[in-house]
Amino acid sequence: MAVPPSTYPRRLLPLFLGLFQAALLVFFALFVTYDEPSAQAEDTSLVANQVYSTFPFFQDIQVMLVVGLGLLLTFLPRYGFSALTHNFLLLNFSMQWALVLQGLLQHFHHGQIHLDLHKLLISEFAAVTVLISVGAILGRASPCQLLVMATCEIPIYLASEWVIVTRLGVLDVGGTITIHIFSCYFGLGVSKALFRATQQPLHPKETPTPSSDLMSLVGTLILWVFWPSFVAVLCQPGDAQHRAILNTLLAMSASAITTVVASSLLERDGKLSLGHLQNGSLAGGVAIGVVADMAMPPVAALALGSLSAVLCVLGFRFLTPLLGRKLTLLDQCGIHNLHGLPGILGAAASVLAVLVAPKDTSGSQPPQLSPAGGNASGVLEGQWGPGGAGGQALCQAAGLAVAAGGSLLAGLLTGAALRLPCLARPPERLCFDDSLYFKIQDQAESPGPDSSAEEGALALKEQV
Amino acid sequence: MAVPPSTYPRRLLPLFLGLFQAALLVFFALFVTYDEPSAQAEDTSLVANQVYSTFPFFQDIQVMLVVGLGLLLTFLPRYGFSALTHNFLLLNFSMQWALVLQGLLQHFHHGQIHLDLHKLLISEFAAVTVLISVGAILGRASPCQLLVMATCEIPIYLASEWVIVTRLGVLDVGGTITIHIFSCYFGLGVSKALFRATQQPLHPKETPTPSSDLMSLVGTLILWVFWPSFVAVLCQPGDAQHRAILNTLLAMSASAITTVVASSLLERDGKLSLGHLQNGSLAGGVAIGVVADMAMPPVAALALGSLSAVLCVLGFRFLTPLLGRKLTLLDQCGIHNLHGLPGILGAAASVLAVLVAPKDTSGSQPPQLSPAGGNASGVLEGQWGPGGAGGQALCQAAGLAVAAGGSLLAGLLTGAALRLPCLARPPERLCFDDSLYFKIQDQAESPGPDSSAEEGALALKEQV
Amino acid sequence: MAVPPSTYPRRLLPLFLGLFQAALLVFFALFVTYDEPSAQAEDTSLVANQVYSTFPFFQDIQVMLVVGLGLLLTFLPRYGFSALTHNFLLLNFSMQWALVLQGLLQHFHHGQIHLDLHKLLISEFAAVTVLISVGAILGRASPCQLLVMATCEIPIYLASEWVIVTRLGVLDVGGTITIHIFSCYFGLGVSKALFRATQQPLHPKETPTPSSDLMSLVGTLILWVFWPSFVAVLCQPGDAQHRAILNTLLAMSASAITTVVASSLLERDGKLSLGHLQNGSLAGGVAIGVVADMAMPPVAALALGSLSAVLCVLGFRFLTPLLGRKLTLLDQCGIHNLHGLPGILGAAASVLAVLVAPKDTSGSQPPQLSPAGGNASGVLEGQWGPGGAGGQALCQAAGLAVAAGGSLLAGLLTGAALRLPCLARPPERLCFDDSLYFKIQDQAESPGPDSSAEEGALALKEQV
Repeated sequence: MAVPPSTYPRRLLPLFLGLFQAALLVFFALFVTYDEPSAQAEDTSLVANQVYSTFPFFQDIQVMLVVGLGLLLTFLPRYGFSALTHNFLLLNFSMQWALVLQGLLQHFHHGQIHLDLHKLLISEFAAVTVLISVGAILGRASPCQLLVMATCEIPIYLASEWVIVTRLGVLDVGGTITIHIFSCYFGLGVSKALFRATQQPLHPKETPTPSSDLMSLVGTLILWVFWPSFVAVLCQPGDAQHRAILNTLLAMSASAITTVVASSLLERDGKLSLGHLQNGSLAGGVAIGVVADMAMPPVAALALGSLSAVLCVLGFRFLTPLLGRKLTLLDQCGIHNLHGLPGILGAAASVLAVLVAPKDTSGSQPPQLSPAGGNASGVLEGQWGPGGAGGQALCQAAGLAVAAGGSLLAGLLTGAALRLPCLARPPERLCFDDSLYFKIQDQAESPGPDSSAEEGALALKEQV
Repeated sequence: MAVPPSTYPRRLLPLFLGLFQAALLVFFALFVTYDEPSAQAEDTSLVANQVYSTFPFFQDIQVMLVVGLGLLLTFLPRYGFSALTHNFLLLNFSMQWALVLQGLLQHFHHGQIHLDLHKLLISEFAAVTVLISVGAILGRASPCQLLVMATCEIPIYLASEWVIVTRLGVLDVGGTITIHIFSCYFGLGVSKALFRATQQPLHPKETPTPSSDLMSLVGTLILWVFWPSFVAVLCQPGDAQHRAILNTLLAMSASAITTVVASSLLERDGKLSLGHLQNGSLAGGVAIGVVADMAMPPVAALALGSLSAVLCVLGFRFLTPLLGRKLTLLDQCGIHNLHGLPGILGAAASVLAVLVAPKDTSGSQPPQLSPAGGNASGVLEGQWGPGGAGGQALCQAAGLAVAAGGSLLAGLLTGAALRLPCLARPPERLCFDDSLYFKIQDQAESPGPDSSAEEGALALKEQV
Repeated sequence: MAVPPSTYPRRLLPLFLGLFQAALLVFFALFVTYDEPSAQAEDTSLVANQVYSTFPFFQDIQVMLVVGLGLLLTFLPRYGFSALTHNFLLLNFSMQWALVLQGLLQHFHHGQIHLDLHKLLISEFAAVTVLISVGAILGRASPCQLLVMATCEIPIYLASEWVIVTRLGVLDVGGTITIHIFSCYFGLGVSKALFRATQQPLHPKETPTPSSDLMSLVGTLILWVFWPSFVAVLCQPGDAQHRAILNTLLAMSASAITTVVASSLLERDGKLSLGHLQNGSLAGGVAIGVVADMAMPPVAALALGSLSAVLCVLGFRFLTPLLGRKLTLLDQCGIHNLHGLPGILGAAASVLAVLVAPKDTSGSQPPQLSPAGGNASGVLEGQWGPGGAGGQALCQAAGLAVAAGGSLLAGLLTGAALRLPCLARPPERLCFDDSLYFKIQDQAESPGPDSSAEEGALALKEQV
């Protein structure tokens, strides 16, 4: 498996991507159009208002995914280009692929698919699952493996989201269950099947440097700032969206402070761990998504934010090492601590919120739990649909089970497929190393006279 | 006072923050709710419009405070994690603390506090004062000291803001007097009382490196871009807000160019100083805040921007060294040059604007100086309230005096309290050093065999 | 020409800028006012809505120009301060200068110029041309040369834009022809006339380092995210703007993926080139601008994005070296590959779109090609103005010819003017070096005992 870099196969990536792009062109040429522009003035004003109310949220989410998440992943000091570029590439590939699949599956009217900003947004949300799952195997998988993983994950996500939201009627405006839990266990499944029982020793290039950790922390802060847009974009305009924004702000704020408390208490010398900060500060945003627009008191958002940060830090401190030792499970970025544990907490909170909510505010306002605009499609009529609050609570729990169980299974199968030799898993020595995928300019300058090109490159990077 | 790092006390910070977070949960559980969602369609549309008109500004301000200001403070090359993290922590702590105090003081109706985005925004503004004041003692104070300082500063700010805006009726839509001047002199007071007569010699770790200066410059640019949102968010929608945005853009633009002129002329070899650029470019934004929505010609915004940049650069060149020598006053980030001097200039301009404005545009439009939405609460009736233009001018001057004098006094008292030994001021050798507060990953790699852990860490950082 | 740094002339820059700023103050004092605020409620609401619909776009564009483009230019490892600062300075200078010229030329009513956000935006667009043109000579020109270049380029741009949009009636909502093609050939003309036949050898300081390339890549990603705002800000609200956003998103996404394909196929060892990624990912945004709001199917946007990325990468691989060898043409940032080739492709596409569009959607909606709000001023009546679709296609082609030809000529003349000795072109040894313009803090620390100050500074930077 240790392919020398000179013979490392490099033609599959452009071939795969090029064919995909060509197929996309054909698909768009055949099936995709824009909505017919309407001649009436009131419609123009309506479309304009939709653009003004959605587009700022959309841009915020783009900043999160392209810049914030990209920077967060640059904590590997020699893998910054790869982290940023693979994240960027996967976002675009997955978004286009989701657009195709959604077009085929859902939006086939009269042979034409009408594209609009909302559909792009939904595809972007699908792409997020891939970007999260990749965190489990960051630095140890080739771009081809990542693309194949994305190719598998997107249709599975769409199916899972259909079951959870449309069939089960789960309320999950911020994607806690459908996106975070799903992608976490999918990623862990891939990691398990890809690396099997091999205990991965600490790689010399996987330790962050101060400057790579700083970039990563900046990424966290960017994600932290724009998270409310991610949670609230699909909410019903008005009170529900307002509440979702406030709940997310409160949860993120509580997470930030509690992370410092937990990290400081857990580390033996009382110093803060950067890994804890980079992840724990965001845990509240993961947990709050599923209940953000529900009628619960603000204290619940604060409590969720605090608890999820504690869970996240505890996960990094105890669970990740344990899973590594007992299950030989590799979770490079600790996605289980950031997306899995807080996600489960949020799902549990949604069960509670559904059970408790109607009691204390029953009389005055019937629709306490406003369903998300594009997500919960007509399942709830009147109060809670057929089963009432208890039925809805069961649905939330069932959604959690489907998301976690289904994705784990699908991830294991996908991970097994990624072991195909043609997908060019990087040799161990060149894991976490940009020089396998990028022309690093410095290489040209000082090729050692008697060393192979690869060693020269490594030696040179040592000095940097 | 030179505590060795091994015995450096580290339990106070999580204890303090943990108790605060627990108390906040109790307070929210008892008193805080959201507004009841209304069933009527027109109300929903109203709330939606409020969200769309406020939320983008709010996000811009969050980017400024979390990313922009955080990066600006990373000019200390070994203190980047601390600068970013302490800034982030203080923002969240101060915002929550302001939320509690404002809830208790102002918004107690029927035993319940109704939370909304506007109240979060007002609390965020309160938190800004802490983030500015910290600049005076950056790198030489422990996180515990900073938190105690925030605990004292927020209630004093709220009292000061109440006196200045509500009692005196000062017009200050962008917070020049209430936020910038207040926090500048509070910070200087703290610095003076904390370090007393000790002349602080140049610390070897306080000189920026090219890469830390570059990050800091990026922070400046982010602040520069989003500053108009900070000034205009509380303006009356419509003309006043439009004018505030334009005035701020003009002032910032003039500041940027004038800073280059002034810095280039003042440095002996004609080269630009990065410290001047990082601060002078923003001086116009500080000065313009108090007059941004007033009816003054655009040239006044340009002039204010230029003058404030000149003052800022002159302050760095002459005043800061002078204050350091004569008053042994430490002002690490030069907050007096960025917030104090331009703030005073802006306040003086507001006196002038109030006196001059009605004359040249008297007939046509009565309410030339539209009071800020949430700030000036009903003091002005008709033209200028009881005293007319002259009375209003006096009010502006009085507001300046209250903000500067009151905060200096309060800062001195707060600074004295920060000398409590239990607050763990960092030892001189470990000032400006992340390794006192953060697990720096490199430390694990190469512990020198015969050196103490601390020296090993320092030696290692030397190589980085 | 090799002036030693000690005698390098440094007084011209502050003198020039200072005089300009003083003149600007006089001009504003004499001629510029704000719109009279209106007393009527419906007008206030109208202004408020205009602010809410324009300001978020405006801020996005500011982030692109100040932060995104600034960071993109920091790929020169020792020229980061200069790249960021000169970009920032030129943006402000050019914007103010365009404001003055536009005020004089177009908006003279009753002796007063009424300033509003839209006029600032138009001036910002004018300034973009300067920021792009600078890329051709980045690192080899002094700030004075750049300012003189801006002084010349802005009026020429305004004239060119007037001819192209107002006289010829060219449709170009995203500035592909008026901004990108214009500024590209202007910059190349300047470069040719400034450096003439001198073959510029590879300068030792012009090779990016991994950390400078990473910052530059972050800049690309910021530009990539906000590009739709740049293209769509001047569109008609409603369908046209919605379509412009979608088309830009599709084109940028196709560019991102195709750049990876093309770069990987063209490099001998199949590795990705960072220069390709930094530029190719944005090529689609350049090409799509001219057709973004036209009634074309979504597949056209994807195809344009892919093709422009291929052209951009091919340009870097073959055309830039060829032009360097054959024409001794220096194009430091490869602006011809990012702005020239994709711009020409976009212009050609617009000819095609104009010819094809009416045929397949003729009956139902007459105004298929909605003219841009502020750009196409009343030339088109009914369908395509006097000449019909064919006439409009000719206009588009003529616009391309005027933009490219006129700007090349003007650039050559401007470049010749920049050879004036008093403009202080940097000596070859200190090209690409911040230490010529900035007080680099490290210099103070370790002046070598027997080396000149300059050598000491260089040696020290070597270690960093």
